[in-house]
Amino acid sequence: MNTIIEKILDHRSIRSFEDRPLSEEQIHTIVECAQAASTSSYIQAYSIIGVTDAEKKAKLAELAGPQSYVEENGHLFVFCADLYRQDIVSEMEGTDVTESLESTEKFMVACIDAALAAQNAALAAESMDLGICYIGGIRNHLQEVSDILNIPHRVIPLFALVVGYPKNWSDKKPRLPQSNIYHENGYQEDKQEFINQLGGYNATISDYYEQRTNGKRKDTWTGQMAGMLEKKSRLYMKDYVEKQGFKKH
Amino acid sequence: MNTIIEKILDHRSIRSFEDRPLSEEQIHTIVECAQAASTSSYIQAYSIIGVTDAEKKAKLAELAGPQSYVEENGHLFVFCADLYRQDIVSEMEGTDVTESLESTEKFMVACIDAALAAQNAALAAESMDLGICYIGGIRNHLQEVSDILNIPHRVIPLFALVVGYPKNWSDKKPRLPQSNIYHENGYQEDKQEFINQLGGYNATISDYYEQRTNGKRKDTWTGQMAGMLEKKSRLYMKDYVEKQGFKKH
Repeated sequence: MNTIIEKILDHRSIRSFEDRPLSEEQIHTIVECAQAASTSSYIQAYSIIGVTDAEKKAKLAELAGPQSYVEENGHLFVFCADLYRQDIVSEMEGTDVTESLESTEKFMVACIDAALAAQNAALAAESMDLGICYIGGIRNHLQEVSDILNIPHRVIPLFALVVGYPKNWSDKKPRLPQSNIYHENGYQEDKQEFINQLGGYNATISDYYEQRTNGKRKDTWTGQMAGMLEKKSRLYMKDYVEKQGFKKH
Repeated sequence: MNTIIEKILDHRSIRSFEDRPLSEEQIHTIVECAQAASTSSYIQAYSIIGVTDAEKKAKLAELAGPQSYVEENGHLFVFCADLYRQDIVSEMEGTDVTESLESTEKFMVACIDAALAAQNAALAAESMDLGICYIGGIRNHLQEVSDILNIPHRVIPLFALVVGYPKNWSDKKPRLPQSNIYHENGYQEDKQEFINQLGGYNATISDYYEQRTNGKRKDTWTGQMAGMLEKKSRLYMKDYVEKQGFKKH
C-alpha cells in the first residue's frame, strides 16, 4: 500500500461543494494530468471544455438532471470524444480519411482515450483533496448540450466531471466481488456462479443502504440495475452519434 | 505538485520487461484499484481477464502485432466491456432489458467504465514502480481473441494492459499543446488556429524524434496521424460489436 493506492481506494463521488472556484493553476495541472494518460496510437482523440459561465452551467445542470452540483462546484469539465482535430490533419496532409474517422473502431478509440484522460484528471483532483463526480447525465440531451458548448462535427460530449472543495463527504460504495470482475485465462461464464456471486453482493448492498438510511432503503444491486435498464434511457444516441460523424460503419 | 501528480506526469509506455511475474497480492491490489473507479449508475459494466497461460499469451502477442511484450511481461490484463452480467441480472429480476443493453448509449457506458477502471489499474501499477503499456492491438482480430479467452455474448475485449518490471525505460512523449485540448466555455473550432497549433506541435514532435534517432526520423504528428488513418484498420469492428450484442440501435 502506498499513498497513490490509498487515494485510489478512498474514492467516493462528491455531490456537494463549497462555493470556491479552483485556481487557474489547479485547472492547468488537472488538464496536464489528463493529457499524460496513454492514448491509442498517439491520436489524443479527445478534448476538454471547462465551463465557468454561470448561465451555461445552470442550463447544463438542468439538462443533466436537474443536478444542482453540476452548477455549484469548483469547476466543471466536459470531456468530449474528438476527431474534429483529425479533419484538420486530413486537410493539412492532403489525405481523405473519412472512412477511418467514421468507423466503429475510431469511435471506440475516442471514447476510451477520453475516459483514460478523465480518470487521470479525477485522480489528480482527488490528490489535491478536492472531490469529484462524473456526470453521465449530460447525455440525457446531447443536442442541447452541444448547442450550449458550440460542439462541431466529429465531436461528442461524453460526460462531465465536476470538481470542488467537498462540503459533505459521502460514503464509499461497495464494488462487485473481485471474483465476479476478474477472470483467469478466460471468461468464466457459469450462470449459477454469477447468480451466487450477485446474490451475495445483493446482501452487501442491501446492508449498506439499510445502515445509511435507518432501514428506510434496502435496495439490492440487481434490483437497482433492472430498474435502471427498464427505463430505456437515451435511445436517441445512435442517431446523434452518427449525425456527429461517428460509427457510421 | 504532490507524489500522485508527479507519478501521473511521469507516465511513459514500457515495452520491455524483466522475466518476473507479478505477485498474487500485486494483481489483487491492481484489480481492487480498477474497481474503485467511478462507474455509470453503479453498473460496473466491465470485466478483466488476467492471462498467465503461456500458449494463450503467445497467441495473443501474435494477433496483437506481433508485439513481443504482450507475451513477455509481469502480467497481462485484458479489459472487456461487459453487459453479460446484466443478462444474468435480467434473469434474476424477471425483466427484459434487451433494448437497453443493445443501445449505443450502453455501449458507450461499457467502453467508458472499462477505461476508467483500466486507468486506475495502470496508475496503481506505476505507483509500485512497475511499467505499463496499453495494447489496442488485440482489436486487430477480436474474433480470434474472443475464442482464446472464451468471451461470451455481450462481452467485448477492448484492450489489454501489460504490466511488469521495466527492463528499459522509454522517454515521455510530448502531448498536444494544452490550448489545443482545453477550451473555455465552448469549443473553439477556428480552423486556422488549429492549423497553427498543430504546426507548432509538429515542430516539437519532429525535434523529439530527431534527437532520439540521431536525425534518422523526423516524423511530424500530423504526418503520423494521416498515415495511421489512411490504413483504415479494423473496419470489421461494427459487425463484431453488433454480433456481440452491442449498439444495435
